[in-house]
Amino acid sequence: MSDPLTSNFPTDVYATRLKQAQQGAQTAGLDGLIIGTGAELAYLTGSWISTHERLTALVIPASGTPTIILPAVDRGDLALSAIPELDITVRGWVDGEDAHDLAITALGVTEFNALGIGSSITADHLIPIQNIVGPQCRFSLAVQVLKELFVSKDAVEVEQLRGAGAAIDKVHAQVPALLIDGRTEADVARDLEALILQEHDAVDFIIVGSGPNGANPHHSFSNRVLRNGDIVVVDIGGTFGPGYHSDCTRTYIVGGDPQAADPEFIKFYEVLHAAQLAALAHIRPGVTAASVDAAARDAIASAGYGDNFIHRTGHGIGLSTHEEPFIMAGNELVLEPGMAFSVEPGIYIDGIHGARIEDIVVVTQTGCETLNNEPKALR
Amino acid sequence: MSDPLTSNFPTDVYATRLKQAQQGAQTAGLDGLIIGTGAELAYLTGSWISTHERLTALVIPASGTPTIILPAVDRGDLALSAIPELDITVRGWVDGEDAHDLAITALGVTEFNALGIGSSITADHLIPIQNIVGPQCRFSLAVQVLKELFVSKDAVEVEQLRGAGAAIDKVHAQVPALLIDGRTEADVARDLEALILQEHDAVDFIIVGSGPNGANPHHSFSNRVLRNGDIVVVDIGGTFGPGYHSDCTRTYIVGGDPQAADPEFIKFYEVLHAAQLAALAHIRPGVTAASVDAAARDAIASAGYGDNFIHRTGHGIGLSTHEEPFIMAGNELVLEPGMAFSVEPGIYIDGIHGARIEDIVVVTQTGCETLNNEPKALR
Repeated sequence: MSDPLTSNFPTDVYATRLKQAQQGAQTAGLDGLIIGTGAELAYLTGSWISTHERLTALVIPASGTPTIILPAVDRGDLALSAIPELDITVRGWVDGEDAHDLAITALGVTEFNALGIGSSITADHLIPIQNIVGPQCRFSLAVQVLKELFVSKDAVEVEQLRGAGAAIDKVHAQVPALLIDGRTEADVARDLEALILQEHDAVDFIIVGSGPNGANPHHSFSNRVLRNGDIVVVDIGGTFGPGYHSDCTRTYIVGGDPQAADPEFIKFYEVLHAAQLAALAHIRPGVTAASVDAAARDAIASAGYGDNFIHRTGHGIGLSTHEEPFIMAGNELVLEPGMAFSVEPGIYIDGIHGARIEDIVVVTQTGCETLNNEPKALR
Repeated sequence: MSDPLTSNFPTDVYATRLKQAQQGAQTAGLDGLIIGTGAELAYLTGSWISTHERLTALVIPASGTPTIILPAVDRGDLALSAIPELDITVRGWVDGEDAHDLAITALGVTEFNALGIGSSITADHLIPIQNIVGPQCRFSLAVQVLKELFVSKDAVEVEQLRGAGAAIDKVHAQVPALLIDGRTEADVARDLEALILQEHDAVDFIIVGSGPNGANPHHSFSNRVLRNGDIVVVDIGGTFGPGYHSDCTRTYIVGGDPQAADPEFIKFYEVLHAAQLAALAHIRPGVTAASVDAAARDAIASAGYGDNFIHRTGHGIGLSTHEEPFIMAGNELVLEPGMAFSVEPGIYIDGIHGARIEDIVVVTQTGCETLNNEPKALR
C-alpha cells in the first residue's frame, strides 16, 4: 500500500546503462533485446511500471533508438521513471492491437537470427513473439548480455545497498523488545511491518519463525504463541531508494537469556556463527561463488550438521531480492569487486527449532564490506 | 499480510480437472503440459504456492502420473493444497540440481514434438527448457488446452464468484460514508483495505480516483484531498474462498448530492449508465465477446463520447483477476453458459474527471446473472 518509488538516479546513469546494453547485444550478435517489467527494466530506465497481463516491454534493437511498448492507459506512469528524459520512443497500444507484433516491429529488422529476452517475460508473451519471428531465430536470456552490468554494482548502487543495510539494522535493533512471552508471531510481524516502513519505501517480506517454525526456512509467520526460551528466526527485508533491497536474518531467544536455551541448540548455534564468519573471511576477488558456499558448508558439516543445512549459502541482491551471484555448489562464477550478495547459512532441526545468520556483503578490492552490523550472538 | 488460502474444493474436483487437462493434452497431440505457479496451478490442484525465482512446475505428461517439481524446502507448503491427496508425484529439488531437466524427465518420453506451457512460466525457465528439448519441438500455451476448462465456470466456481460479488457489494455499501470533504484518497484507501479484509481473504487492489485522477483508469490512490462535489471512481477487489476474485466499480460524488455535479458530468454519466445496461442486456449464449463490447461502445459513441472510452469493456474473472473471455473488439469468442466476466465501460475527460460502472456477470442459459447489485445512480 506504499506509493510508487520516485527516487531515481540521475538520468545519465540510465542513459549509460542503455548504451551498454545495446553494445552488449551487438557484441553478442543479437538482433536486439526484449526486456519485461521488474528489476531489469528498473535497472535500465528507473521504471517499476506493472501492467498485469498486458504486454509492457522495452525493445532495444542492436542499433537505433529503443522503444517502450505499453498499454496507452499506463503512459502516465512513465513520469515516475527516467523514460521521458531518455532517448526512448514511447509506443502506447490499445486493446485490439497486437502488442507482440509491435515489439517485433520495434526491432527495426525483418529477419531474425537471435534475440535476448528479459527474465520476467512470461510464456503468454514469449510464445506469441516466437511464433511471429519464426523457428530459425535463437532465443537466449538477456541477462547473459546484461550480466556484467547487473552483477557488479557501481558506486551509486553500493551506496543505496549500504543505506538499505543500515535501514534493516535499525529494525533488527528493536526486535528483542518485540519478542515477549504470550505474543504471537503475527503480532510481532505486524510490529515489524510498521518498523520496516519507517526505514524503507516498502516491505518486502517478513519471517518470524519461532520454535519448530524456525526449522522451515520459508515459513512466514503464524498465530503460534511465543514462550520464554523459544528460539525465533527473524528474516526481514524492505525496498529502499530507487528499489534496492535489504535482507537480514538474526536468531533470537524469547526473554533474551541464552542460558534458557537447550544446550544442543547453543552448541550448533556456535557452529553456525563460526561458519558464517568463515564464509565472510573467505570472500575476496578471484574466489568462486561455489567456494564461499563450501567455506560455510564445510564448517557446518565437519561439526556433524551437514544434513541440517538444506539450502544454498546466499544469493545476489540489488533491484531484485534474489539474483546472480548465487552462492552455491556448482556456481564457478569468479567474484569481482562490486558484487553484492547474502551470506546466510542455517541449521534446521525438523520439528524442534532452527537458526540462521544472514548479512549482505559487497566484494571489495581485498575482501568484503559487511552491510549489516547488528550483533550475532544469541540474545 | 494475510495467511495463505486454505479453503479448497473437495479433492475429487481437482482429480477431475487434472484428468481433463491430461485428456486435452492427448487430444491436442502434445507430449504434455508444464504448468507454472498462479491461477492455472490453483485451478488444477488448489495450490497457490510461490517459490520466487526457483522453478515450481506441475508436469502433466500425455499419459502417466503427473509430477510436481519444487524446491525441497517448500514441500511443506503443499499441505495447503489438494496435492497430498491427489495422484501426483512430488519431486523436491535442492540448490545445485537442474530443475529444468527434472521437469523434462517427468514427461516420461525422450523425443519431444509439442509441449503446452503454462502462461505464468517466465523466460528464465522457458528458455532453458526449450534448449533441453531441442529446436524440433513446437511450443504452445497450455491455456489453449485448458481453455474449455477455465473459461466456463462450473456450479461450484459460480458459487464462489457469487460469494465474492456479495462480499465486495458489502464494501461498496459503506463507501459513501468514507467520502468526506478534507480526507485524502489514501485515507479512504486505508479504510477500504480494512473493509475488504473483513469480507475477503486478501485485498487485491484499490482504486480511489477523485477529480482528475478519475480520468486515469489505472490510477491507484494518492494524497489528493477530497472536496465536496468531487467525482470519485472507486474500483476495488479482493480474493475469496479458494482464490476467486471480486472486482466492482461504482462512481460517487463527495457529499452525496448529485445536484452538486457539473451538468456536463451528469449528462455523460447517464450515457455511461445506459451503455452499461445495454451491454448487460445484450449478453446471452451465442453472442460474441466482441458484440458485448460493441453494445457498450456504440451507446457511448453515438452520444459523442466514443474517444473518451479508452479501454476494453471487460475481462474474464475467476482464479485470475484478468483472464479470457476478454470483452473487446476482435474477440470472436462465442459466449457460453458459465462464462464469467466484467462489464465496465468508462468515460474519461482528461485532467477533469472520469466515471466507470462495473459489474461481474455469469452467462446463464438465457442471459446473464449480475453478481454485483449495489445501486449505480450517482450518490
